[in-house]
Amino acid sequence: MQVKPPRPYYVPVANEEQVFKAAYNQGLSIALKGPTGCGKTRFVEAMAHDLDRPLVTVACHDDLTTADLVGRFLLHGGETEWVDGPLTRAVREGAICYLDEVVEARQDTTVVLHPLADHRRQLPIERLGVTLDAAPGFCLVVSYNPGYQSVLKDLKDSTRQRMVAIEFGFPTADVEEKIVASEAAIDHDRAAELVRLGHAIRRLETGGLREVASTRVLIAAGRLIAEGLAPHDAARAAIAGPLTDDATITRGLLEMIDAYLVDLRPDD
Amino acid sequence: MQVKPPRPYYVPVANEEQVFKAAYNQGLSIALKGPTGCGKTRFVEAMAHDLDRPLVTVACHDDLTTADLVGRFLLHGGETEWVDGPLTRAVREGAICYLDEVVEARQDTTVVLHPLADHRRQLPIERLGVTLDAAPGFCLVVSYNPGYQSVLKDLKDSTRQRMVAIEFGFPTADVEEKIVASEAAIDHDRAAELVRLGHAIRRLETGGLREVASTRVLIAAGRLIAEGLAPHDAARAAIAGPLTDDATITRGLLEMIDAYLVDLRPDD
Amino acid sequence: MQVKPPRPYYVPVANEEQVFKAAYNQGLSIALKGPTGCGKTRFVEAMAHDLDRPLVTVACHDDLTTADLVGRFLLHGGETEWVDGPLTRAVREGAICYLDEVVEARQDTTVVLHPLADHRRQLPIERLGVTLDAAPGFCLVVSYNPGYQSVLKDLKDSTRQRMVAIEFGFPTADVEEKIVASEAAIDHDRAAELVRLGHAIRRLETGGLREVASTRVLIAAGRLIAEGLAPHDAARAAIAGPLTDDATITRGLLEMIDAYLVDLRPDD
Amino acid sequence: MQVKPPRPYYVPVANEEQVFKAAYNQGLSIALKGPTGCGKTRFVEAMAHDLDRPLVTVACHDDLTTADLVGRFLLHGGETEWVDGPLTRAVREGAICYLDEVVEARQDTTVVLHPLADHRRQLPIERLGVTLDAAPGFCLVVSYNPGYQSVLKDLKDSTRQRMVAIEFGFPTADVEEKIVASEAAIDHDRAAELVRLGHAIRRLETGGLREVASTRVLIAAGRLIAEGLAPHDAARAAIAGPLTDDATITRGLLEMIDAYLVDLRPDD
Amino acid sequence: MQVKPPRPYYVPVANEEQVFKAAYNQGLSIALKGPTGCGKTRFVEAMAHDLDRPLVTVACHDDLTTADLVGRFLLHGGETEWVDGPLTRAVREGAICYLDEVVEARQDTTVVLHPLADHRRQLPIERLGVTLDAAPGFCLVVSYNPGYQSVLKDLKDSTRQRMVAIEFGFPTADVEEKIVASEAAIDHDRAAELVRLGHAIRRLETGGLREVASTRVLIAAGRLIAEGLAPHDAARAAIAGPLTDDATITRGLLEMIDAYLVDLRPDD
Amino acid sequence: MQVKPPRPYYVPVANEEQVFKAAYNQGLSIALKGPTGCGKTRFVEAMAHDLDRPLVTVACHDDLTTADLVGRFLLHGGETEWVDGPLTRAVREGAICYLDEVVEARQDTTVVLHPLADHRRQLPIERLGVTLDAAPGFCLVVSYNPGYQSVLKDLKDSTRQRMVAIEFGFPTADVEEKIVASEAAIDHDRAAELVRLGHAIRRLETGGLREVASTRVLIAAGRLIAEGLAPHDAARAAIAGPLTDDATITRGLLEMIDAYLVDLRPDD
Repeated sequence: MQVKPPRPYYVPVANEEQVFKAAYNQGLSIALKGPTGCGKTRFVEAMAHDLDRPLVTVACHDDLTTADLVGRFLLHGGETEWVDGPLTRAVREGAICYLDEVVEARQDTTVVLHPLADHRRQLPIERLGVTLDAAPGFCLVVSYNPGYQSVLKDLKDSTRQRMVAIEFGFPTADVEEKIVASEAAIDHDRAAELVRLGHAIRRLETGGLREVASTRVLIAAGRLIAEGLAPHDAARAAIAGPLTDDATITRGLLEMIDAYLVDLRPDD
Repeated sequence: MQVKPPRPYYVPVANEEQVFKAAYNQGLSIALKGPTGCGKTRFVEAMAHDLDRPLVTVACHDDLTTADLVGRFLLHGGETEWVDGPLTRAVREGAICYLDEVVEARQDTTVVLHPLADHRRQLPIERLGVTLDAAPGFCLVVSYNPGYQSVLKDLKDSTRQRMVAIEFGFPTADVEEKIVASEAAIDHDRAAELVRLGHAIRRLETGGLREVASTRVLIAAGRLIAEGLAPHDAARAAIAGPLTDDATITRGLLEMIDAYLVDLRPDD
Repeated sequence: MQVKPPRPYYVPVANEEQVFKAAYNQGLSIALKGPTGCGKTRFVEAMAHDLDRPLVTVACHDDLTTADLVGRFLLHGGETEWVDGPLTRAVREGAICYLDEVVEARQDTTVVLHPLADHRRQLPIERLGVTLDAAPGFCLVVSYNPGYQSVLKDLKDSTRQRMVAIEFGFPTADVEEKIVASEAAIDHDRAAELVRLGHAIRRLETGGLREVASTRVLIAAGRLIAEGLAPHDAARAAIAGPLTDDATITRGLLEMIDAYLVDLRPDD
Repeated sequence: MQVKPPRPYYVPVANEEQVFKAAYNQGLSIALKGPTGCGKTRFVEAMAHDLDRPLVTVACHDDLTTADLVGRFLLHGGETEWVDGPLTRAVREGAICYLDEVVEARQDTTVVLHPLADHRRQLPIERLGVTLDAAPGFCLVVSYNPGYQSVLKDLKDSTRQRMVAIEFGFPTADVEEKIVASEAAIDHDRAAELVRLGHAIRRLETGGLREVASTRVLIAAGRLIAEGLAPHDAARAAIAGPLTDDATITRGLLEMIDAYLVDLRPDD
Repeated sequence: MQVKPPRPYYVPVANEEQVFKAAYNQGLSIALKGPTGCGKTRFVEAMAHDLDRPLVTVACHDDLTTADLVGRFLLHGGETEWVDGPLTRAVREGAICYLDEVVEARQDTTVVLHPLADHRRQLPIERLGVTLDAAPGFCLVVSYNPGYQSVLKDLKDSTRQRMVAIEFGFPTADVEEKIVASEAAIDHDRAAELVRLGHAIRRLETGGLREVASTRVLIAAGRLIAEGLAPHDAARAAIAGPLTDDATITRGLLEMIDAYLVDLRPDD
Repeated sequence: MQVKPPRPYYVPVANEEQVFKAAYNQGLSIALKGPTGCGKTRFVEAMAHDLDRPLVTVACHDDLTTADLVGRFLLHGGETEWVDGPLTRAVREGAICYLDEVVEARQDTTVVLHPLADHRRQLPIERLGVTLDAAPGFCLVVSYNPGYQSVLKDLKDSTRQRMVAIEFGFPTADVEEKIVASEAAIDHDRAAELVRLGHAIRRLETGGLREVASTRVLIAAGRLIAEGLAPHDAARAAIAGPLTDDATITRGLLEMIDAYLVDLRPDD
């Protein structure tokens, strides 16, 4: 169980807050679609704050069993004692339950969400022989990155059609500049340079790149600069390094970094 | 164990209620075939209500073991104590046992249903060394989506031939309009618009789409509209988002949404 | 352990009863080969009745471990206590042990049957450190459907050559008519119609069909008719539905149903 | 632990008894190679009898763990208590340990045999932290069918080169006749007919057949005849049935049966 | 928990110490990229020393479960008692947690690092129902060898973009000479010969070689020489042997060894 | 724990004893490369004897878990009690730990050897939360057969480069003759014949043979001869049988046996 944090810094891009709250009011489940590092986690934290609900986050992975979500029996004093999993706790408390990167979970694990995600709003716990009705305020939220979808790792249609979808992209240059400056504590000119660099990399359409430069890596570069690192070195470590392991592509990225960032380049 | 709910809102499409009750009276098992979101779960809830039987629902998944269905030993006070699974409870109580999305379960799990599904109506519980005769009223019901069938995930013929099959499709426009208006609490004109949109999408024959728009997503769009969202935004979130992650197809769906829904389009 | 039932309704097709009893008297193991729904289970029930032996049935599946057959240790009062599996019980009691759909079991599971199936008639229980001699009357019977055989799922030759084989097919029209009329409690003309329909479908040589119409599905259709359903509707639910999910093949089957069954067709 | 049985009926084919005893005296391990049903198990039983050693037999399978061979901890009175596996018992008692169909076991399981099979004659039991020296008289014997060998299921060379190999084939006609007559308790003319049939089938060189007719199936046919079954019916059940599931090949075998067996053919 | 060692011998190659400390001060996670044997482990040990933090090292492998990192319940006096894993200990103590060869771990295991690697710096422990905030000083460091990357074994982008990357290569000839002489306790001329040999092998661009000669194998050769082995024999055992099993390539390497190392060649 | 045996009969082929002892003195790990049956195990036994260290041997296999090497918790008197694995015992006692056929182990299992194999000489035991420093005298030795290497089963480079390699081949004719005569207790002429046969088979370059005749199989043939078996029969059982299952190749080998061994050939 997580203590509700202060409203995190989140700047809306479109009508995503409106759609989230409408779905929440109707008791519908919500899927957040978008690339890594674009702010999905922050958004859910902001929504939980606005709606005044506890937030339960589960990082999904291939090994996540139904028992990890729902609960299990443990031994205490020679007795098997039931301990709720995070999903069951959220159902009982009426919390927002956020399953991060849900396509990582096995398809069969997501099937246990069905009676909870549709009109029934029920969680059957077979090992206890009970069926819980979700408390008012309970809301199921999942996130995934459509770019990662594959035949093996994909949400089933019967799961998707139980959810309302909100698409996320990167913020506009204006908004992103504000976010980078504020999060990295650097001045706006430096932040604007980093955002221009990020947009230039995104325009490459991932030719050989694994994924485009996210807002997150721009912030990390800014924070290394704030720590006194030369901008070139900071961008190499925080942007080029995470984006590729390929020597040729790295060289291209370093040229872009030189072109976009005004730099004393101490170690060239 | 589930407390029997009030009769859910279910409008029959053909003779499905008649066939179900005939099979029930003869002690035959029943397979419901049809796409996701067309009302199979509601139908079983309505039948359980009409026949006055408790309903035990199991959402099937790849990890569902025989022990999850039949029962297992747990430790209590240093003793191993047997706890019935949902199937065993249904067999003892004479309940309707509904295995939702049964093709998700492993083939071998479904083999344990054989002595129960044919003339024997018996559940052998090997770990207890007993064979239970199903109580009067017990009825085994399974559902699956024929569109999902694959070489790996399929019901065995020896399982299929132990069951009577009822096919489900989407309701006619008239019936669907009534369902959408009633479930989303919107007026009939708006519901008719959504149903026309849904039928247009279904006529696309899933060209690139993963699956057609179900009655369920039309209801979800209606509920977002009821919450004050613009129809365009509501349909984007509840219909286009769940149906595809592809940018081109999304664009096509949004054009259809604009064409079919009268809208002020506040965020275009 | 199963209480011996009254002699089930079984009409012999050829010399299968004679072969079974000769093998039984010689202590040989028996393999029943034949399609699904042709009466193999009934036959074993009848033989157990005639020979006055208890019958222990195990539905085989991919997950069936040696421990499920032979037995395991469970905790009672802080002690691990051995509990016999169904095979061990049959060996001790001199019962007929029937392994239904044995090719579903893993090959390695069937290897534990070898010392029991040949001249040794012994069951070594490694976890107890004992070797049991089968009690007089013990007989190992397995069944499988040769049509399902594949490279992955097949009986090993060293297992097959430890058994005497009895082949099963569907009964002749005369016999099948009697069975359908008796089991479904319908008149002979109606039963004859259903049997003619079944034979017509079997002549299709499963062109696109998964498997031919078994005696079992003809009986199910008869029982729905007995319940008041129109013959067309009954045959659609009990015969066409279980045999295929393909729309074109379904249409062909419905035409055959119309051609063979005299029907008022109330819902066409 | 098995009580030593009386010398089983075994007629030597070549110098196999001499080689076995020489290897035994030298403390070398032994591999028996040959088709199914040719008498390998009987041979080991006879050798154990002649050498006056207890015989511990393990039927190998894909699921056989090292713990199944060596031993494991079980709970007794709240303590974990070690229980020897069959291999460990044989090592302590100086028994002959016979691993039947050893290629069925996983390669890694056979690796634990290495220190036992070579000059060390030691069994390290890692879970106990001890290394046992094999008692005098201990002898490791494995069997396999070279015809089953495949890339996946094969003995490693480092295992093979730790063993002396003895090849088995079917006995000569004379010897086989004597065995069939004695084991099935039928007269010599009938046994000679069966053996001639068996040799004819073996000459087919398994064209489409899975494996040739073993001595074991000839004995089974003889025993059904002794029980009063017509020779044709007996051979169909005990020879043709186990050898093939193919309709065309079955027809060919039935013709051979008619040609070789003088028969009243009561059910043709 | 590891006691902090004295500063290990580490000679910086570029600005890697500066980048590490900037990222550390900003609470960012760090990925070390580079070939095997180039000094990544030493570098982390030196950083932990300079920053005065405890160092917790985890060698990753395919079998490493989330429980191995986070902790598990063990039985003590009949109670299940929680025991922290190395990651949890590092989070509580504010240690540097070094996951060596992180691509060896399953992708799903690395997903549990996400909330810890980004702005949240939190470790949710689902089995305890708590979420830990990382103590000040906690720093997540991972290492991997980009040359090993494959489709199956690769860091996910959502993991990579949560980290700052530092690239490692082999040191310059000058620096490497100093390292080899110091670590192997041999004179500088011999060390220089070994380094020239190493550079020559690296220039082969791994034509048939599995990987180039690392600083580590040069040091090992030096240590064998210090032990009195002829240089030729030392280089054969420490350089040629680990780099290839191929006879032709071995011959080529031995010729290079003869050409670069002044040797009495006692065993040629 | 093994009691140190008397020095086993081992005749050195090249400088392998010198290299081993130099690496041992430097605390380096050692990999023994060579075909099966060439004396690697004997060599390690001799080295342990000369260096006066206890020897802990682990036969590696695919199923060997990290817990099998390092240790695990067992239940004693209701408490979980830690029991050291063989690797941990060797680390504590300063023993030589010999991992036989290490490529059989899963790659991830070998990763736990890394901190032990390099300059750290440490074994982190995550389940105890401790890191052990290897006692003086501890030495890690692994063996593998390069001929078995495959993409799936191979030592990782990061493991290989942590080790010094010693290559093994078969001894020269002179040495091998002495070994065969001494181990099998036969006269030198007979031993020379067997060695000439072995060399002839090795010259075939394994055309169709799985592997060449090792010193081990020559010794086994000698021991059967010492037991009174005709040389032809002994060589057939101990050499031809283990080397092939193919009828044509067997015939070729038998001709070579006849040509090289002077024999009375009692059973031809």
